[in-house]
Amino acid sequence: MRQGAGAASKQRAISMDVGGTFTKVALVDSGGNIVRRWQEPSEHDIASSEVPGFVVRLVRGVLKESSLTASELVGVCVGIPGVIDRRTQTIISCPNLTNWEGMALGQLVEQALGLPTCLEKDANEAALGERWLGAGRGVDDLVCFTLGTGIGTGIIVNGELYRGSTGGAGEIGHIIVDKDGPACSCGNPGCLESFASARAIVGFARDAIEKGSASVLLEVAGGDLDAITTETVFHAARSGDPVAMRITADAIEYLGVSIASVVNVFNPAMIILGGGMAQAGEQILVPVREIVRKRARRLLADHVEIVLARLGNDAGLIGGAYLVFRTQGVAVQE
Amino acid sequence: MRQGAGAASKQRAISMDVGGTFTKVALVDSGGNIVRRWQEPSEHDIASSEVPGFVVRLVRGVLKESSLTASELVGVCVGIPGVIDRRTQTIISCPNLTNWEGMALGQLVEQALGLPTCLEKDANEAALGERWLGAGRGVDDLVCFTLGTGIGTGIIVNGELYRGSTGGAGEIGHIIVDKDGPACSCGNPGCLESFASARAIVGFARDAIEKGSASVLLEVAGGDLDAITTETVFHAARSGDPVAMRITADAIEYLGVSIASVVNVFNPAMIILGGGMAQAGEQILVPVREIVRKRARRLLADHVEIVLARLGNDAGLIGGAYLVFRTQGVAVQE
Repeated sequence: MRQGAGAASKQRAISMDVGGTFTKVALVDSGGNIVRRWQEPSEHDIASSEVPGFVVRLVRGVLKESSLTASELVGVCVGIPGVIDRRTQTIISCPNLTNWEGMALGQLVEQALGLPTCLEKDANEAALGERWLGAGRGVDDLVCFTLGTGIGTGIIVNGELYRGSTGGAGEIGHIIVDKDGPACSCGNPGCLESFASARAIVGFARDAIEKGSASVLLEVAGGDLDAITTETVFHAARSGDPVAMRITADAIEYLGVSIASVVNVFNPAMIILGGGMAQAGEQILVPVREIVRKRARRLLADHVEIVLARLGNDAGLIGGAYLVFRTQGVAVQE
Repeated sequence: MRQGAGAASKQRAISMDVGGTFTKVALVDSGGNIVRRWQEPSEHDIASSEVPGFVVRLVRGVLKESSLTASELVGVCVGIPGVIDRRTQTIISCPNLTNWEGMALGQLVEQALGLPTCLEKDANEAALGERWLGAGRGVDDLVCFTLGTGIGTGIIVNGELYRGSTGGAGEIGHIIVDKDGPACSCGNPGCLESFASARAIVGFARDAIEKGSASVLLEVAGGDLDAITTETVFHAARSGDPVAMRITADAIEYLGVSIASVVNVFNPAMIILGGGMAQAGEQILVPVREIVRKRARRLLADHVEIVLARLGNDAGLIGGAYLVFRTQGVAVQE
């Protein structure tokens, strides 16, 4: 492995987190510090041919504003909310950015910039970030959940990211928890996501109100059905609203049961709960722990810690930079 | 790694498969050939203190009958139908042989015999065996199911057995497929095993007959309710018996849906179906393939081969020997 120029002079990478709404970009050093950060709207509507140019333009903007040349960077990581084919470094599924699908983005960006470029699933980056500098420090077998619009997971096995045979591992949001359940965004019925994602929770809340259930939810959302979010629902549940309590309890039960299954399958030392929904904190953590204790095999439940993520929204950016440093043989500070 | 004395002179290990009813023992060479085999009833009722002696006596019997000395053996592997704590080489759960629980059997046998001794979960051994010389040759990411009284699995990740943080990984039989389902042998409701194991299928068949369902099942079993086995039920289903068809279809649907979940989580290149129930062959294989094709994420379903095991009941014995050779640095013929 090529070593860095020494711990004293930290090296830098650019990490990009392409979300359904915003693209975040950060200059991250080999100590895991975010030196600078930027954000701009993700390009939903651009032609596929313009996607590499969008990424390249962002990277060049960071270099310019930071007064850096490309040769002063170790590399770039682009985090994608979708499935990557590891062999071809191609985005093969990205429901929120369909124009990005089919792109061999890693190679295209690498050629345009002359910089080593990684392409990675955002939930995998978050797992790497939490393991590097967050809740999972020093833990070799863990599963990190990103509870958001969908449910993503990154799996660390024997200290390394587990990507599966073609790079698509970790679709725990699509564990089938009720074979005859409601339709999921993936087209199949009864996936965990169709019961416990932010999208599902908000959908159940709107349905309940439209059906006339007595609830403070509409009031909390300022009278606007479209303004209901998972935060609104969890907030209403905390205040004792029966509709919100039932919806969150159901979602948490499915989440807990699925985590019990994950514990039975992986025997991980740690489960990390991150993503927007995990902002509800103890409100999710306490019942999930209780369900796993009751429903996973005792020997495995006894050996797993279930904790909240620590890096918040930065986990993916930090994990992406870690991937660049590791791939390029730069010594990182752990 | 210590190398063997050369490919020409094959080395030998003793592999033991402790089942709920019989204990099989084999002398296996480094080419994966079973040189000799023995079988005797498993000791359910002996005191815990006598368990190591039972194993040691079997090994000494093999040595004597084969005119071998201990120094001519590479080592011993004891396969257990239960959960092993890797760190202490202790049997921590073994529902069919409760007197064996709590035993640090690996160490005790090793001390008594002066031979390297591995202790391993039987389903893990079967996965290793099928990958060495069976259906999974050369496949780095696979999940091998042993469909029997219970449902065991061995998981191969990046070419190595995945045991989890304490050795309990692979309890896929205890994926929760219906959180409000019937009680499983593990004490929890709605595990895959409670719907699709041989034990469950036989139970559903007996229930149906006791409730007076019109079925050829009782006739096929010679009029004896206790003589109904999974073979009886699959046989009756093949002959068009509606009760047996419904029972097998339900079990296969739960199995297929769970394998779809496993495909979504692991993105394996191969799923291997082994164990007694897999003797039903195409009767299970064809519908499972169809369910996975429909219910797993397309990109992952497209990349997984679902096949029948090839080593039959010998998979565990052969895999156990492989583990001994690998652990002791003996070159195996692959």
